[in-house]
Amino acid sequence: MANQIPEVVVQRLPLYARTLARFLEEGVEVISSQELGVRLQVTPAQIRKDLSYFGKFGKQGRGYNVAHLQGVLRGILGLERTWSLAVVGVGHLGQAIIAYGGFAPEGFQVVAAFDTDPARVGQHIGSVVAQDSSELSQVLREQKIDIGIIAVPASAAQAVADTMIAGGVHAILSYAPVTLRVPEGVKVRTIDPVLVLQSMTFYLKSPEAALLSSGRRRGRRL
Amino acid sequence: MANQIPEVVVQRLPLYARTLARFLEEGVEVISSQELGVRLQVTPAQIRKDLSYFGKFGKQGRGYNVAHLQGVLRGILGLERTWSLAVVGVGHLGQAIIAYGGFAPEGFQVVAAFDTDPARVGQHIGSVVAQDSSELSQVLREQKIDIGIIAVPASAAQAVADTMIAGGVHAILSYAPVTLRVPEGVKVRTIDPVLVLQSMTFYLKSPEAALLSSGRRRGRRL
Repeated sequence: MANQIPEVVVQRLPLYARTLARFLEEGVEVISSQELGVRLQVTPAQIRKDLSYFGKFGKQGRGYNVAHLQGVLRGILGLERTWSLAVVGVGHLGQAIIAYGGFAPEGFQVVAAFDTDPARVGQHIGSVVAQDSSELSQVLREQKIDIGIIAVPASAAQAVADTMIAGGVHAILSYAPVTLRVPEGVKVRTIDPVLVLQSMTFYLKSPEAALLSSGRRRGRRL
Repeated sequence: MANQIPEVVVQRLPLYARTLARFLEEGVEVISSQELGVRLQVTPAQIRKDLSYFGKFGKQGRGYNVAHLQGVLRGILGLERTWSLAVVGVGHLGQAIIAYGGFAPEGFQVVAAFDTDPARVGQHIGSVVAQDSSELSQVLREQKIDIGIIAVPASAAQAVADTMIAGGVHAILSYAPVTLRVPEGVKVRTIDPVLVLQSMTFYLKSPEAALLSSGRRRGRRL
């Protein structure tokens, strides 16, 4: 089943799951795709189409059962368990990632950190101690790390990715501004604020474009 | 013209421009959509279609003139000028954003920073001094800030966005895990690593899905 689902759909599901959790907190038990769409700022048609990949949810005119749909989406996404993270690079960015309070409540635990700089190795950052990057591959295997996070400069990123993959990691979140080459079966996501800013200056340059297009695609999430 | 261009296309252009810059540095003068596609890990057809929104580039079988196309894309995206940024929230994340070395070379200058915490106001962070958030709207107007960056907790993000917009900002990059409501004509992009991680656990949970889909959409950039 999973292989037939467009990746862009998979990328939207986490936001659906989170938004349903917010509605649950607010005591909402049933919700229409219209109401969900307003909160998510996407069209109800897109929500219905995205969900249709995973089965039939809700009845025409009755809306979705919030708790049920949220549970199903969490199951589909594998959010019922904890995932371990290793951060490579503990400069400003790596430290901010390790200190970020948003991971743990969602089941993502930073369990190891690495750097090549001897001045940083041994440093306590949150609940981890920075280890030498030469130990990366071995530690990843021993601790069965699920996801690698790259917070090193662009020039070092590909080598770190290669070592992560050699260490058995199948998912990488990279903050380095470079397109990584990875073998089949390994997932990479890149968070690159410069590219994000550059996709907004297009609209700042010609404000009428922003005004005309904003009704269609406001508040896109990356 | 700009209003007819899908936002997803605009979001890909910065990566095209950057990749062309790398080819220029490598001394490549002409490039085919196939070669560009290999580097970008997207299909040549998508590149050709995306570029077709902006006119005719390259001749069938001849490829693109790298310098020309890069210049045109930079012009389209408004990258020939400098854009000013204000960062609100100077905790770990805000400090990492201000310290990030990738903005300035691309023409993005952090010129102001704000926080509500009296202990942080007055603190020097890189080349800026944190100001009290109560001054945000006024400073944004006086300094004609182009883009606001939100690095505060989710619970405070909407209020900061509202104040930014009141201060004349038309583009916001938010690191807060919440969907912001903004008026027409204001662009918002959200960088949310939890959602990104959650879109990968889907594939970790069922590795065969990653293997089967990775040929289509490897190394997606967010």
